[in-house]
This record gives sequence, structure tokens and C-alpha cells, in this order.
Amino acid sequence: PSTLRLAVIEGDGIGKEVVPQGLRALRAALEPAGVTVETTDFDLGAGRWHRTGETLTDEDMAALAEHDAILLGAVGDPGVPSGVLERGLLLKLRFGFDHYVNLRPTRLFPGVATPLADPGEVDFLVVREGTEGPYVGNGGSMRTGTDLEVATEVSLNTAVGVERVVRYAFEQAAARRGKLTLVHKHNVLVHAGHLWRRIVEKVGEQYPSVAVDYAHVDAMMIYLVQDPSRFDVIVTDNLFGDIVTDLAGAIGGGIGLAASGNVNPTGAFPSMFEPVHGSAPDIAGQDKADPTATVLSVALLLDHLGHVEPAAAVRAAVENDLAARAADPSLASRGTVRTGDDLVAAIAGTAPGSVR
Amino acid sequence: PSTLRLAVIEGDGIGKEVVPQGLRALRAALEPAGVTVETTDFDLGAGRWHRTGETLTDEDMAALAEHDAILLGAVGDPGVPSGVLERGLLLKLRFGFDHYVNLRPTRLFPGVATPLADPGEVDFLVVREGTEGPYVGNGGSMRTGTDLEVATEVSLNTAVGVERVVRYAFEQAAARRGKLTLVHKHNVLVHAGHLWRRIVEKVGEQYPSVAVDYAHVDAMMIYLVQDPSRFDVIVTDNLFGDIVTDLAGAIGGGIGLAASGNVNPTGAFPSMFEPVHGSAPDIAGQDKADPTATVLSVALLLDHLGHVEPAAAVRAAVENDLAARAADPSLASRGTVRTGDDLVAAIAGTAPGSVR
Ligand SMILES: CC(C)[C@H](C(=O)O)[C@@H](O)C(=O)O
Ligand SMILES: CC(C)[C@H](C(=O)O)[C@@H](O)C(=O)O
Repeated sequence: PSTLRLAVIEGDGIGKEVVPQGLRALRAALEPAGVTVETTDFDLGAGRWHRTGETLTDEDMAALAEHDAILLGAVGDPGVPSGVLERGLLLKLRFGFDHYVNLRPTRLFPGVATPLADPGEVDFLVVREGTEGPYVGNGGSMRTGTDLEVATEVSLNTAVGVERVVRYAFEQAAARRGKLTLVHKHNVLVHAGHLWRRIVEKVGEQYPSVAVDYAHVDAMMIYLVQDPSRFDVIVTDNLFGDIVTDLAGAIGGGIGLAASGNVNPTGAFPSMFEPVHGSAPDIAGQDKADPTATVLSVALLLDHLGHVEPAAAVRAAVENDLAARAADPSLASRGTVRTGDDLVAAIAGTAPGSVR
Repeated sequence: PSTLRLAVIEGDGIGKEVVPQGLRALRAALEPAGVTVETTDFDLGAGRWHRTGETLTDEDMAALAEHDAILLGAVGDPGVPSGVLERGLLLKLRFGFDHYVNLRPTRLFPGVATPLADPGEVDFLVVREGTEGPYVGNGGSMRTGTDLEVATEVSLNTAVGVERVVRYAFEQAAARRGKLTLVHKHNVLVHAGHLWRRIVEKVGEQYPSVAVDYAHVDAMMIYLVQDPSRFDVIVTDNLFGDIVTDLAGAIGGGIGLAASGNVNPTGAFPSMFEPVHGSAPDIAGQDKADPTATVLSVALLLDHLGHVEPAAAVRAAVENDLAARAADPSLASRGTVRTGDDLVAAIAGTAPGSVR
């Protein structure tokens, strides 16, 4: 009998629809085990920005920090200029809470459609660095808007920052199938690339059971569509991770199923879990969004907080639901709430501690 | 009756096998029209580096500059440290000869296998910037090799550099199906991204017949595997172009068919044409490499020099040969030279000026 204090950011568009289903799944998984979920809603995203001009204040950050974890839906709408919510909200959270591990699993569940003709068994985990690289916001421009403009973007990479995420990735690989692939572009980005390479070599000495290989990010594109089953854990920088995980999401049955965690493994700050998809204004408010990516993000949240069996119950419910959709395609148009109903029922039936 | 002065860099591995077939195709396409091809061989690549420690000297550059164009096979072998030939040879050529347009067409020829289950009609052209962005080599590291290392990579982008390649891309789009897609990541790389965006808007005003859209590089991964037929011309920066074109190559039937041109449209320096694939040491010297990507690069070379009909003859020969392979899969293992024989015979039969 304990309490999970969860900060909830529904955000905009379909974020407001998928998050409630995620919360139901979370409660269904935890309550049989006697864990109560206490939520605090945070009004963040395009809606708030339009009303107040604020993205994320110091007070918001302080209040969020009081929680065990954060569940985020999606933020943004076409009326917000590009970069405002990305830099001012999403990346501010990732950087402010030192979410140095961006965890993005790809698993092609049985029965799920993929654009690949012959995908094989796809089950890998991308460990994307979350607080460095080209994402640091260290750039600028001069003579802006003139014919003589010069614009820069600086990728900053530190041994400390690379080592901690690489170590995390080795731990994951050791607990999975013992394979780690570093993705970078060290033949062109020689300084950052060689830093990553040296650190993977060094940390790898402590994990003799893990086989290490390397792929340039461009070659990785080819491998991911020709032979995605060869990968187990992939570790890479912030920008390459952004690109690789969208391709991975597409291969794994579409971004509607892709979950992610922005994790601070030290526990110094709350970690944040979110579907990879956006706010999808075109289908918002119509009960059309698939809540599965959010529910799978809840499974990552549960794992992170040590609730391993409830996490497994959530994943099993999703797996069964996807198999049911393969058998009966009409289920795919059930709508957000009914999909949530079915997932919650399945979780409630199997979660540890539940009475069947 | 004129002369084409061609600089030839066979390079290493299968470069030495595919380039001779490319040259045969070039001669077969041009000689019926009375154009003589005069070649100068340049000993560049891993072989030379191992022997002399040199990658590309000022004398080499001056001598190369005397030619109408350059045909390159592939360079590199596992004994050369990462970055040495990339920065010291390939990128030095692209930057030194101001190859600001990196031209990479993707066309899924009838009968060619692709990893996608349902690719549709794939025929697009990536116009990759070739002389700016994260490729400029403007980075460094301090406290290198220690736990306190900091490594940087700076992406440099200029209005002049972006505008000239964007203009080129609009020209191509206007001459094709009238669609241009800018690929960047302007929600995170706001300075470089907004520069690209502004320039595409500005130049676009002069091309009212071209419809313009935009995709973030991560979303592009999804579109390229889910619906590649929607693209016509894609314009993007140096690094995103590297990544997108390898995915495009895989979709278009594999990197063994992917051609490229490093073009200076002003003619101030010779342009360079090369297959996208590498030197493939594992199959080198065994008559196994497919010369098709090199032959298609020769078609780009012919187009660039204004030999439009010979270029079309080369492409038609490739298209027929790929269809023949689909009908008779044993042709795929014909070997490099016999594939060259068949392509040359087909070109010789159809090239303008040829006697049938
Ligand atoms: C919205 C954007 C800032 C974000 C990123 O680039 O990381 C998104 O693409 C993602 O992958 O979570
Ligand atoms: C070899 C390397 C420098 C090169 C690049 O990154 O441009 C290659 O990947 C390419 O696409 O031509």
C-alpha cells in the first residue's frame, strides 16, 4: 500500500485523449498491488502558450520536480511557431531534469502491419542520448535575413555525458541479448565521433559478455530496412537517435505504437514518459487516436519505478490487443476510449494481485 | 568530333572493377556521336596512402582541375583510420572543387527488388548540399582522451551557400513534376533551419509552378518507407542528405544501384561522379561487384556535360538490363565484366549516331 505521485501533462490535440487512457491503464496495473496513483495536472502546451505566452516557468519546473514521474501526451498546434514549444517546453524538460537516457524500444508485435516486405523478428531498444549533441541549443546567426547571413549550430559532447548513457546501454544489452551497436558518423564528425568510439571501447571492457559493433548513421538506414532483426541495443547521440527512432517506429508498425521514456536513472529528477507521436490536430477530438503508444509508455514508466510485473501485465494486454486487431481489423476503428476499455479490462484481469 | 577529358580515380577494392565498366559504357555512349574520351588515371585512395602517406596533394588538385569531369569508383580499406580518406580525399575534393550540389536520384526500376512491401512508383531526386553544414570540419576537442573531454562539431550555413543549392533544386523541380520538399529539423536546429526555410520561401516566389512542402528529417524517415512515391525533388543539408540518400538507396533497390554526382553547376571546377557504394573489400577482386551504380553515375556525368541523348541511352540500357535480371535471376551473378559487356552492347545498339 503505497502512493505514486504522477505529474500529468496532457498537452494538446490527441494528447488530451490518449493520456486519460494511459492513466486508466496505469491504475489498472497498480491498484491490484495496492499502489494508489495520485495525479497533478499541469496545463502546458500550445493552449497555455496562446493564452499566456508562457511555455514552462520556473514554478512549473519546481512543482513537476515534486513528483515521482511525469506522463506527457503531446504538445503543439499549427498556430505555434516552430521551435517555441520544442525548445521552451519539451527540450527544457529533458535538459532541466537531466533526462540523459531517451529510451525507445521497437518491437514488431505479432500481427502488426509494417511497410517492410520481410522484417523478420524485430525487437531492439534504442538508447538515445538526451542532453547533449546538436540539441544543446548552442547556435546563432548573424546578418540574419540578409544575403550575407551565417547561421551555426554547435554539437557539444562531453566524456561524462557520453559515458553515463553508454554505460546505461551496456547494462541494457547485458540484460537482453548481449549486443550493442554504436551509431554515429565518426568518419566525418571526427571529434564527437571519436569521443563516442573511445568511450564505447572503454566501457565495453567492463562488459565482456556484450558484443559491440558500429554503424555509420547512413549505413544504419540500410540495415534497418534490410535486416532490422540483427539489432539488440543501439546507442547513439541525440540527433541520430531522433532520426533512427522514427525509422524504427515506422518499421515497428507505425509511430502510433512507439513509446518513449526520458529517463534520469539517478532519480535526482522525475523521469518523463510520452508517446513518440505528436498532437495530430487533424484527428484531435474525434476519438480516433490510438492510445497504445501512451499505454506502452506507461509500461516503461512502471519498469522505471520498479513495478516490473505490472509493466509486464500492461505489455501483455497490448500484445493481445494487437493480435486481436490482426484477427478482426474492425477493432482498429474502435476509437480511443473503447481501445482503452479493452486494454484496461485485459490489464485488470492479469495484473499481479488482481482477483480473476 | 570533340574530346572529353576525363580524370579517372578508380580508388580501392571494387572501385578498380566497376570504373573500367563505367568507362566502357561512357565510350559506347559517346563515340557514335563522334566524341572521344581521353582519360587520365589518378592514383588516389587507400593504396596510395599506405605507400606514401598522401591523400590528395595540391599537385593532384591542380592536375584534376584540368579535366572536364572526374569519375571516381570508391576509396578505402579497413587498414586506413576512419576519417583519413573521408576528410583528406573525398570531402577535400567536394569542398575544393566547390561541389555544392550533391545529386542523388532514386528510381525504383521495374522488376527491381526493394525491402518495402508496397513501394508504389518511386522516382525522386535528392539535391543534397555539398559544401556546408556539419561537414565543414569545424570542430575540435579539449582534454582529449580524459574523463573531462569536451568535443564539438560546428555546422556552418550561409545564405549564399543555401540559396545556390536551393535554386538548383527549384530548377530541377520545375523541369520534373513540380514538387519540392525541404528536409531539415528547424524545430530544434532553429538557426540553420530557419535560414533554410526563409531561403526556400524566398526563392520559391520565383517558381510559382513548383509546390513546396517541408518535412522534419525524423518524419521523413516515416514518409520514405510508408509512401516514397509522394516525393519529386528533395532539397536538404549535407548531413541530412547523407542519411536520407542511404535510406533512399535502400528503397530504390539497394546501394548497388545508387548513383551520385558532386556537381559544380558553374563549371568553375570539374564535377565528380561516383557510385554511392564503398570499396567493399570483402568482395573485391572477385568479379562480383555490380557496375550498375557506376554506369548510372556515368549517365549523370553525360547529362551534366550536356550529352542528354547519350545519357538517355545509358539509362535505357540499365533499365532493360534490370528487367532482364528480373526475368532471369541467374543474370544477377553474371559478374562485373559480363554485366559490363551486356550494358555496353545495349548502349552501342541505341546510342545516338550508332549504326544498327
Ligand atoms: C519534438 C522534437 C523536439 C522531438 C525531438 O526532436 O527530440 C521529437 O521529434 C522526438 O523525437 O521526441
Ligand atoms: C564517405 C563519406 C564521407 C560520404 C559522406 O558522408 O558524404 C558517404 O557516406 C557519401 O554519402 O558519399
